[in-house]
Amino acid sequence: MFTINDNYLKLQGSYLFSNIAKKVAAFQERNPGAEIIRLGIGDVTQPLAPAIIEALHKAVDEMGNAATFHGYAPDKGYEFLRHAIVENDYKARGCEVYEDEIFVSDGAKCDCGNIQEIFGLNNKVAVCDPVYPVYVDSNVMAGRTGLYNPTNENYDGVIYMPCLSQNNFVPELPKEEPDLIYLCFPNNPTGAGISKENLQRFVDYARKIGAVILYDAAYEAYISDPDMPHSIYECEGARECAIELRSFSKNAGFTGVRLGYTVVPKDLKSSEGVKLNDLWARRHGTKYNGAPYIVQRAGEAVYSPEGKAQLKTQIDYYMKNAKTILQGLKDAGYTVYGGENAPYIWLKTPDSMNSWEFFDHLLSTVNIVGTPGSGFGAHGEGYFRLTAFGTYENTLKAIERITKM
Amino acid sequence: MFTINDNYLKLQGSYLFSNIAKKVAAFQERNPGAEIIRLGIGDVTQPLAPAIIEALHKAVDEMGNAATFHGYAPDKGYEFLRHAIVENDYKARGCEVYEDEIFVSDGAKCDCGNIQEIFGLNNKVAVCDPVYPVYVDSNVMAGRTGLYNPTNENYDGVIYMPCLSQNNFVPELPKEEPDLIYLCFPNNPTGAGISKENLQRFVDYARKIGAVILYDAAYEAYISDPDMPHSIYECEGARECAIELRSFSKNAGFTGVRLGYTVVPKDLKSSEGVKLNDLWARRHGTKYNGAPYIVQRAGEAVYSPEGKAQLKTQIDYYMKNAKTILQGLKDAGYTVYGGENAPYIWLKTPDSMNSWEFFDHLLSTVNIVGTPGSGFGAHGEGYFRLTAFGTYENTLKAIERITKM
Repeated sequence: MFTINDNYLKLQGSYLFSNIAKKVAAFQERNPGAEIIRLGIGDVTQPLAPAIIEALHKAVDEMGNAATFHGYAPDKGYEFLRHAIVENDYKARGCEVYEDEIFVSDGAKCDCGNIQEIFGLNNKVAVCDPVYPVYVDSNVMAGRTGLYNPTNENYDGVIYMPCLSQNNFVPELPKEEPDLIYLCFPNNPTGAGISKENLQRFVDYARKIGAVILYDAAYEAYISDPDMPHSIYECEGARECAIELRSFSKNAGFTGVRLGYTVVPKDLKSSEGVKLNDLWARRHGTKYNGAPYIVQRAGEAVYSPEGKAQLKTQIDYYMKNAKTILQGLKDAGYTVYGGENAPYIWLKTPDSMNSWEFFDHLLSTVNIVGTPGSGFGAHGEGYFRLTAFGTYENTLKAIERITKM
Repeated sequence: MFTINDNYLKLQGSYLFSNIAKKVAAFQERNPGAEIIRLGIGDVTQPLAPAIIEALHKAVDEMGNAATFHGYAPDKGYEFLRHAIVENDYKARGCEVYEDEIFVSDGAKCDCGNIQEIFGLNNKVAVCDPVYPVYVDSNVMAGRTGLYNPTNENYDGVIYMPCLSQNNFVPELPKEEPDLIYLCFPNNPTGAGISKENLQRFVDYARKIGAVILYDAAYEAYISDPDMPHSIYECEGARECAIELRSFSKNAGFTGVRLGYTVVPKDLKSSEGVKLNDLWARRHGTKYNGAPYIVQRAGEAVYSPEGKAQLKTQIDYYMKNAKTILQGLKDAGYTVYGGENAPYIWLKTPDSMNSWEFFDHLLSTVNIVGTPGSGFGAHGEGYFRLTAFGTYENTLKAIERITKM
């Protein structure tokens, strides 16, 4: 008789955003007239930039012609895309990253979820708290944690690094020694950035204790502070201890197009000398079959002069939203964080409401969807996330509604 | 200090097709003038059908317009695609399958590799021998097998079901009781089909012993025998014991477009009553983020009247290739199998050559790439796979070259 992977039974409820979607759908059904504004899930609203649309059409035409048709993609992604990535995301910032260290994929969520597979089950995982749920959930599903403890709202065996207003939402080095450290900056959900000095502190620590940092840089395009690192490879020694995960979802609006990549430097080796690059290549080759050709061409267009200019306008648009939310909430007396180097605003819930109470309050009173901070971890309780990814009109309207609430 | 997943170290060499690609590249470099014909990897060569190109262009235009832009897709895939799948692939064949049992993905290879995750590590896996390497390798990587045994070329702990000319390449029920049974019909690599009676025998057996069948039906579009089942759900009781994996790669030429789906019936439950549909939904929601909107629209076009007619022509084209290979090799004195309900031809290597010897011989003598049968398992030794996915011109040329060899 077959058995299931009972680690799945340790998981609490369903995936956070599926949960919210269900709650919102139920509310809409009860209130068909309500004009709901969604500032919850980090999904973009601006259409794809013209340079990307043009690249997609061109690639589609190639697929309709036998002479230019493309079947299975190369395991790590097309060279044209990996080349553009290395030149623009790394060389241009003085980082040493090579084309055969880039693994193109269908998005950072998949990579974030799958990357843990190449590590042993005995590795101790450290995460920020609050945190993007995929890091924790994927490790729970693999069996790298104990049971959920309802008292402290933690999974046994996971090291939680509190991110609080007191530490500007940048964690201290953990007291207990981890083997895998998940970091995401600019941060989802708090919107906090990290200084190069603070990131270097983590790199030095990881090298000292022999840990690997899994660095999620999905929001780097939103950095406005010129001194803030866009890549962990701006830090000395990171090639020996860090994997970087990148997304096209937020810098180019690819949430529905699906493209991302992971950097696994060849200098990153286990104590036995096994290269993590080889392991990830094996996983990629065996359990994945490449991002669509047309999507990889769209990715290439992100780095064209036209693409860059158009996407800068798009980022500016969202960051104008962020400023609008930040200022509007401040004026209305809220305590707010983030929103300066990230498309997320992290606010303290008012009147001692907990996060889900504020979610329900906001949805029922002014028909606005946000994300309860507690959905991201115990230290997210009493906080709430709003995103800058709505339209400007809706963002303005949302802030007006909240202000009058 | 972090540790790696050392199950990866049990794997033999690199992924079969990466291996072949490297060998061919090295040969081409040494022989820049050689005009190589590739009948190795199962990659298609015909361009996408006009109905699909049209759907792609239309969807691209939608993505360039704020009013019709699509961000994150629904977890299981868009309703329009799941509806078309249920109507055409199941209802039309009298199978009971519901829309919420369909999980749209970026391809069957990913699903084949990932599906084992929802099962416990103690499950005993049975595979055909020879077999598509992903089934075995993904279980090795998860730790569901022992070490590789070079004597019998098997992984310890895996149940191999020999597929030989004596049993028409349809395995007997295994002597040792498995928990998970991988079946693929029409078969890759042997090209064999399975009768409904034989498939029902496996369904009955799985229900009796409480096993799950993972049924890979990626090649169902190539079935010409009207009595052959296209889906395992044509068998009675399959909803209680079988997961079906489907691909758009071979029926619609989507190898470079990436689309597939998995059916997990709600009647399929563990002994504790846990629905596998819920587990796969959780995996899908947590570690995957949907197939691109434009690709799902392309998938929908596969089921339009124009799409169906155009794709029938495409399948006929490839099956004409299959006939050409089959007849040509027969005439040249080879012993050949498959090619009637599948795009693969499985031939006995001549002159007591082993599979890799014949690979080298064919590549160096007539510059043709095929796939060594032994790459699919110990019982593939002495066999060789050719695919019908080339162009008709190349297929003709290849057979001429082999005939004169």
